[in-house]
Amino acid sequence: AGGLYQLSKAGKLCVPAMNVNDSVTKQKFDNLYCCRESILDGLKRTTDVMFGGKQVVVCGYGEVGKGCCAALKAMGSIVYVTEIDPICALQACMDGFRLVKLNEVIRQVDIVITCTGNKNVVVREYLDRMKNGCIVCNMGHSNTEIDVASLRTPELTWERVRSQVDHVIWPDGKRIVLLAEGRLLNLSCSTVPTFVLSITATTQALALIELYNAPEGRYKQDVYLLPKKMDEYVASLHLPTFDAHLTELSDEQAKYLGLNKNGPFKPNYYR
Amino acid sequence: AGGLYQLSKAGKLCVPAMNVNDSVTKQKFDNLYCCRESILDGLKRTTDVMFGGKQVVVCGYGEVGKGCCAALKAMGSIVYVTEIDPICALQACMDGFRLVKLNEVIRQVDIVITCTGNKNVVVREYLDRMKNGCIVCNMGHSNTEIDVASLRTPELTWERVRSQVDHVIWPDGKRIVLLAEGRLLNLSCSTVPTFVLSITATTQALALIELYNAPEGRYKQDVYLLPKKMDEYVASLHLPTFDAHLTELSDEQAKYLGLNKNGPFKPNYYR
Amino acid sequence: AGGLYQLSKAGKLCVPAMNVNDSVTKQKFDNLYCCRESILDGLKRTTDVMFGGKQVVVCGYGEVGKGCCAALKAMGSIVYVTEIDPICALQACMDGFRLVKLNEVIRQVDIVITCTGNKNVVVREYLDRMKNGCIVCNMGHSNTEIDVASLRTPELTWERVRSQVDHVIWPDGKRIVLLAEGRLLNLSCSTVPTFVLSITATTQALALIELYNAPEGRYKQDVYLLPKKMDEYVASLHLPTFDAHLTELSDEQAKYLGLNKNGPFKPNYYR
Amino acid sequence: AGGLYQLSKAGKLCVPAMNVNDSVTKQKFDNLYCCRESILDGLKRTTDVMFGGKQVVVCGYGEVGKGCCAALKAMGSIVYVTEIDPICALQACMDGFRLVKLNEVIRQVDIVITCTGNKNVVVREYLDRMKNGCIVCNMGHSNTEIDVASLRTPELTWERVRSQVDHVIWPDGKRIVLLAEGRLLNLSCSTVPTFVLSITATTQALALIELYNAPEGRYKQDVYLLPKKMDEYVASLHLPTFDAHLTELSDEQAKYLGLNKNGPFKPNYYR
Repeated sequence: AGGLYQLSKAGKLCVPAMNVNDSVTKQKFDNLYCCRESILDGLKRTTDVMFGGKQVVVCGYGEVGKGCCAALKAMGSIVYVTEIDPICALQACMDGFRLVKLNEVIRQVDIVITCTGNKNVVVREYLDRMKNGCIVCNMGHSNTEIDVASLRTPELTWERVRSQVDHVIWPDGKRIVLLAEGRLLNLSCSTVPTFVLSITATTQALALIELYNAPEGRYKQDVYLLPKKMDEYVASLHLPTFDAHLTELSDEQAKYLGLNKNGPFKPNYYR
Repeated sequence: AGGLYQLSKAGKLCVPAMNVNDSVTKQKFDNLYCCRESILDGLKRTTDVMFGGKQVVVCGYGEVGKGCCAALKAMGSIVYVTEIDPICALQACMDGFRLVKLNEVIRQVDIVITCTGNKNVVVREYLDRMKNGCIVCNMGHSNTEIDVASLRTPELTWERVRSQVDHVIWPDGKRIVLLAEGRLLNLSCSTVPTFVLSITATTQALALIELYNAPEGRYKQDVYLLPKKMDEYVASLHLPTFDAHLTELSDEQAKYLGLNKNGPFKPNYYR
Repeated sequence: AGGLYQLSKAGKLCVPAMNVNDSVTKQKFDNLYCCRESILDGLKRTTDVMFGGKQVVVCGYGEVGKGCCAALKAMGSIVYVTEIDPICALQACMDGFRLVKLNEVIRQVDIVITCTGNKNVVVREYLDRMKNGCIVCNMGHSNTEIDVASLRTPELTWERVRSQVDHVIWPDGKRIVLLAEGRLLNLSCSTVPTFVLSITATTQALALIELYNAPEGRYKQDVYLLPKKMDEYVASLHLPTFDAHLTELSDEQAKYLGLNKNGPFKPNYYR
Repeated sequence: AGGLYQLSKAGKLCVPAMNVNDSVTKQKFDNLYCCRESILDGLKRTTDVMFGGKQVVVCGYGEVGKGCCAALKAMGSIVYVTEIDPICALQACMDGFRLVKLNEVIRQVDIVITCTGNKNVVVREYLDRMKNGCIVCNMGHSNTEIDVASLRTPELTWERVRSQVDHVIWPDGKRIVLLAEGRLLNLSCSTVPTFVLSITATTQALALIELYNAPEGRYKQDVYLLPKKMDEYVASLHLPTFDAHLTELSDEQAKYLGLNKNGPFKPNYYR
């Protein structure tokens, strides 16, 4: 979605676009809830590591980072967080994670996980200082977060120990365990549950239908958020799978709240 | 904040207004994190109830409801949730709470907590069906959520057992324990930590300064959200109290993300 | 270990035996902490099921059941527990799980997990009433807990969908997903972390050494618990892997507690 | 209970005694589950402190320490643990707490909680190094854990800020917040839920009845654990309050397990 906004700002977006990535259902389900499970799954399938007692640093405390941290904390890991944004940083504090700079903990952690959407978060300098056996993986964005290129140098030996798992070996024998060559762990080494796929695919389909059916002029060459009502519709379609029973507003309550009984229930900026 | 938007819609707002209530720092800190603690505190100070094993229904799964549910789940309560909005409803499911209609569980629960912002959520019909000793309280909005007026009838006896705690007694001897006469439990029976007050007061003060200093014409007679940069500033002022260390973007990273190194780091719609 | 005690009671135990299974390190690490991770791992590798929002019943709330319940609750599942022992039952209540009989929830749950050490816990009658797609697996004891033999009848079709995963298909098309043909999920479909293996193997080795070195007559043809001091020794050997720093008693404190400064710190009955 | 065993060892116990403190129901309910709630309650009522983001050190990881740590972790505190016993120490690691010596974290923590059953755990040297505003309290044993006497010296000023809360002020203005003058926080500043009292009182009453009714010679001048069957009976009496439904063994299952259908279900050493 960041790319769309940059295109739009540069005047290079030639069609209307829906920022589906920032709709609630995408953010919460594809990112938070899915990653909460896939971080554990991806690490187990590749390394069989035990989570209890392990020290982990998670770079980035957006929805993906929140999911990773919650899961690992629940499994008994001791989790540190790095952040650039003070709002997310303060959330990490209130959720019980020490907010550190990467260099403060890099020597002691057993697992390093990137979820920033940024580039060069884990650079060679940090890789050099990790301890023997440290696991390094990326849950964030593309393959930019770990500077894997910096590891392809003559003095380091690569050993493929199984699919998606490389040992990178320093001259002194130290090994780090690099997963999926720095690509997305959740896509490369875990699976995406059909439930999450269904939510994301439904959201994308509805966005396309909305753009296709919209009267001339409703959408310009810009980036739009999915109308809240559609976001709510996607959610309501998935409630029966949990045997979940929604409460309906009475007429009196709807009037009191100034809402239509059928929604949207939240302002468009809600997330 | 809902009132401001209704005024604005009706053309009756005669000055610019900042919707401070919907800024991230207010929503997360005053609502989510503060209520996570004050629901436990308010119930303990008034009733000394043990949370472990108790069945609780929480009406509403916004930030306040999320805080209440998380706290009670952590203390070993079995928590049910009611919701009108499918997005919040689906979040409740994914967080491990059964989504029910109030009438499905009202006979079995030990504690009823309202956090909807709505009116007449717990009406006499439900109060009649609660079991003996059920505790009823409001964490949401004003004093509208529980229909307390419906309990002031001749056939019911009120007994004040201590400050903020009334037993309402049915002819058959059944008692419900009504806290703060249906007013806000977190304000009436708990305390607000200075940390949260500081965040909220800082946000309000910055909003007033922004409105006061703004050049003529920047703000019209409408409702505005606090600029994200100020929200981030409030957060950054509170990080040192946790000895939290923020990471700074490198020039290369800021350019890659299309961000200023000093923020704002999030789009205005971020929450 | 139960078998050893039955042999001993029957006077058929012809050598001294150490009940290693009931030592603290075995119970907590091999059972509680290991199963907390392997229940998630085993289910993911075989079914890719999403845990969030799923309804699960766990039969048995011993150490294994506690581990399974804690993990699934943390991942957002709604967990019910069955128990025969009132002490474990009350613990389940206090930990926030509804204590039910299997027939109360069997129609609604998405996953059934046995951890009882008993036989015929999930019998054909329950299998008949499960809903379409229900996953059934055993974390407990041998292959006795699920009555798999009752499913090998002409009217049911078995379909092997992948290694360790069978669909059992009813005449009306209903499928249940049976894992590892009812054998132990944690051994068949997950991995045992080296850390846990190390604890268990160290405990077993020390027990053998103790029996071998013991002076004539110290151990009779009976079942013994590992001396607490050895249990503590096993634990202390594994602390450095977590960079964990133990506190030492001062002379004054040891005297006050009536303990030797080097342990054992707990009475033999401690678990 | 430690005192009873010391008396017995010294040959000074002149009547049979039941070690009720080490029965499962006492340990789990009075210590673990009760303290999980009363640590939060005691701290809130005395100091109104916000738990989110606070750094806390808990001395001792027995049942009381486990309850305190679980509660504070759930509320978003960052919790460190000290231990002398490697078994409890390893449990703390696996539950996600850094195991430290007190001097490693004493300068940085916001709250210090003792739950060791020992004496002089927090001595003047540590009190001197705490930061301004640090809260110090005792959840463990009598009033021995914090060396309060060492604070009654001329250079320190005591200021009673409210009932059970003293500020002790250093010459440089640093204040520590001492609760209940080092006596038990859970008894002095919190309440004990009737549910827990009922469990403990029932256990004590049954122990007395057992000793009174026992045939001559069953109990000598020694310390006994409550027979498991009585422990189970206490638990079963408290299940209906949670609407909890116990499963009964079939004849076949009881035979398979070598158990009586009415219990005891656990060996006497079970805890």
